Amino acid sequence: MPDPRIPPAQLNRFMAAALRQLGLPESDATTVAQLMTEAETQGSDGHGAIRLAPYARRIRAGGYNLRPDIRVVQDRPGMALLDGDNGFGHLVMKRAAELAIEKARQCGVAWVGAHHSNHAGPASIYARMPLAHDMLGLYFAVGNANHLPPWGGLDMLLSTNPVAVAVPAGEEPPVVLDMATTVTAYGKVKAKAQRGEEMPIGWMIDRLGQPLTDPKRADEGFLLPIGGYKGYGLALIVGLLAGTLNGAAMGRDTIDFNKDDATTTNTGQAILVIDPAAFGDVAAFKARVDQVIRDMRGSERMPGVDRIWLPGEQSHERRIANERDGLALPDALRAQLDKLAGELGLPPLSEH
Amino acid sequence: MPDPRIPPAQLNRFMAAALRQLGLPESDATTVAQLMTEAETQGSDGHGAIRLAPYARRIRAGGYNLRPDIRVVQDRPGMALLDGDNGFGHLVMKRAAELAIEKARQCGVAWVGAHHSNHAGPASIYARMPLAHDMLGLYFAVGNANHLPPWGGLDMLLSTNPVAVAVPAGEEPPVVLDMATTVTAYGKVKAKAQRGEEMPIGWMIDRLGQPLTDPKRADEGFLLPIGGYKGYGLALIVGLLAGTLNGAAMGRDTIDFNKDDATTTNTGQAILVIDPAAFGDVAAFKARVDQVIRDMRGSERMPGVDRIWLPGEQSHERRIANERDGLALPDALRAQLDKLAGELGLPPLSEH
Repeated sequence: MPDPRIPPAQLNRFMAAALRQLGLPESDATTVAQLMTEAETQGSDGHGAIRLAPYARRIRAGGYNLRPDIRVVQDRPGMALLDGDNGFGHLVMKRAAELAIEKARQCGVAWVGAHHSNHAGPASIYARMPLAHDMLGLYFAVGNANHLPPWGGLDMLLSTNPVAVAVPAGEEPPVVLDMATTVTAYGKVKAKAQRGEEMPIGWMIDRLGQPLTDPKRADEGFLLPIGGYKGYGLALIVGLLAGTLNGAAMGRDTIDFNKDDATTTNTGQAILVIDPAAFGDVAAFKARVDQVIRDMRGSERMPGVDRIWLPGEQSHERRIANERDGLALPDALRAQLDKLAGELGLPPLSEH
Repeated sequence: MPDPRIPPAQLNRFMAAALRQLGLPESDATTVAQLMTEAETQGSDGHGAIRLAPYARRIRAGGYNLRPDIRVVQDRPGMALLDGDNGFGHLVMKRAAELAIEKARQCGVAWVGAHHSNHAGPASIYARMPLAHDMLGLYFAVGNANHLPPWGGLDMLLSTNPVAVAVPAGEEPPVVLDMATTVTAYGKVKAKAQRGEEMPIGWMIDRLGQPLTDPKRADEGFLLPIGGYKGYGLALIVGLLAGTLNGAAMGRDTIDFNKDDATTTNTGQAILVIDPAAFGDVAAFKARVDQVIRDMRGSERMPGVDRIWLPGEQSHERRIANERDGLALPDALRAQLDKLAGELGLPPLSEH
C-alpha cells in the first residue's frame, strides 16, 4: 500500500505537539511548527520537517534558550536590532519581519537585524512575509556552517549565506528569489553520492583548484561560488550585512550548527522591507510587475524548453499542489518523525 | 617617446571643459567630470573617459536635458523618489546618495530611488559615497542595454543590472563589491575577438543553448548569467528594485543607450544607505570588519595563488597608484578625446 499523503495541517499539529513536548511554550511551538510546515509545503524540504530531529537534539543538549526574551536593543525610526536571546530563529525573524513591516509603513523602508538568533528555515519564508501587506521583502542570513573558502583560498571561512527577495505582483504570483551563493547545495552533492552518480564540472573543486566530480570525495574539496569570485564577494557581503553589522557570528566565528549542538551560535539575519505605497500607486506598481513577469514568460524559447519560469513560480505551484493533495514525505523522514514521537511519548504522525 | 601619464586632475579639467562646451552648467560639468575621473582612476575604464564621446553624441542628438529640474517627487522619512528629469545620471545619483545619507542619519537606514535618470558610471562610485560618513552603501541599477534573455529564453529582455555594496572598515580598505549579474562583461568578449582568441566555455551560449566560444560569433548568442538561473533571477530582481519600483524602464522598455542617442531612457537606479551608528559602536563595527578582512586574506592558499583579494581591494590599490603615477590612457582613447576637443574648439588633453 502506498503511503498516504499527509495534509500540511496534520504535519503542523504533529510538529507543534513535538515542540511543546520538547519544552517550547504553547505559542512558540505553534509559530515554529507553522513556519516549518510552510517550508515543507513550498518544497524547501531541506528546511522543513527534516529539521525537527536536529532541533530536538539541540534542545536536549541545552543549545537553545526555550524561554528567550527576544527584545529590541537598538532602535531608530527606520531600523531595529533584535537580540534573539538564543531562541528559535523562527521566533526571532518572524518578530523582525513584523517590526520591519510596521516601521516601513511609517518610513517607506525599514531594516531589522538580529543577533543571538538561530537557524530560521528557508530565507524566502521571511522575505515573503511583507507580501501580505503589499510590500517587498529582502532577507539576508549567515548560514549555519562554513562550506566556502575565500576565492583562491583553502580555509572554509564562509557559509553559503543566502539572500531572498520577494516582490508582490497583481494577478501573477509574486516574484520570489531565494538563493545561496554557491552553484549547488551540499545536499545535492550527498544525493549524487547516494545514487552513485558523477557531479557535473562546476559544482566543486579540490584543494588544487581542479574540478571535483566524484561526490564520494566531497570532503576533499569545496563548493564553488556562483560566478567564481563574484559569488565569494556576495557571500562575504551578505555575511557582513547579516552578521558583522549586527554583532553576530561571521566567518571564523561561525558555529557549525550541524555538528555542535550545545554552543550558542549567535546567528545573524536581517530583513529589509520596502513599502511601494511610498513610491506611488500600489496597484500601478503591481500591474507593472505583472507586465515584466508576462514579458519574461512570453519570451521565445530555446529548443527543448517547455516553459520559462519566474523565480518563485515553481515553489508557488508546489505550495498550491501540496495544500490540495497533501505532502508526500519520504519514508526515511516519516520514520525519523515517528521515532522522535516515540521518544517524546507522542502518537505517530499518522494519528495527529 | 612613450606617452606621458596624465594626472587625474588634468583629465578632470579636460572633461569639465568639454562638458561646459557641450552646454552643461558650470557646476554640473564639474560634478560629472569629477565622477568620470573617479571611475577612470579606480580602473573602471569602461565607465570613465571612454564615455565622453558617446555622451557628447547624445547631447548633440538632444537625448539629454542639460537644465534638468532634479527633484523629490515622493518622500517619507526613510525614503525618497527622485525625478531625474532626463539629466546626467551622475547628477541624479549623487543627489540620491546625499539625500539617502542625510535620511539614514535620522532613520538608521534610507533608500532613494530615481526615474528619468541616465547612465551614471560604475555602480561602486555611488555605493562608496556613504563611506566618507562611516556608513554602508548598496546601489542597484538597470543597465543601459539588454544583453540577457530570461533563463531558457531567446529574447534579450534583461540587462546585466549591476549591484554594488560598500562596507567601511577600520584600518583596512573598505570592502567594495561591484558586480554585473553576467559571468563576463560584453567588453571582454570584444577584446577576445580583437586578439583572435577563443572564449572559455561558460561565458556565452548560442541560440540552441550550446557553449559559444568564438567571439566573432558573439552576435549569435547571449552572455551567461552567473550561477545559471540564479543570475537570471538576480538580474530580474535588481531590475524590479531599481526600475519597476521607481516607475523607470525595465525589461522590454529598456532603451539601448549605445544605439539610440535621442530617445529618453527613463533609467532607474536606487541607493540604500545604512548607518552602523544605529546598530551600536561604529569603531567596534569597523574593527570587526577589519577582522573579517584579515581572516579572509590570511586563509591558506591554493597552489599558485599569491594573494587572496577582498572585493574592492584591487580597485583601491589602482586608485592609489593612478593618483600617484597618473593615468595611462590608451592611445585610441587619447585620440578620441583630442578629436572631440578639436570639434569643441578646445586645446588637446595634454594642454589642460
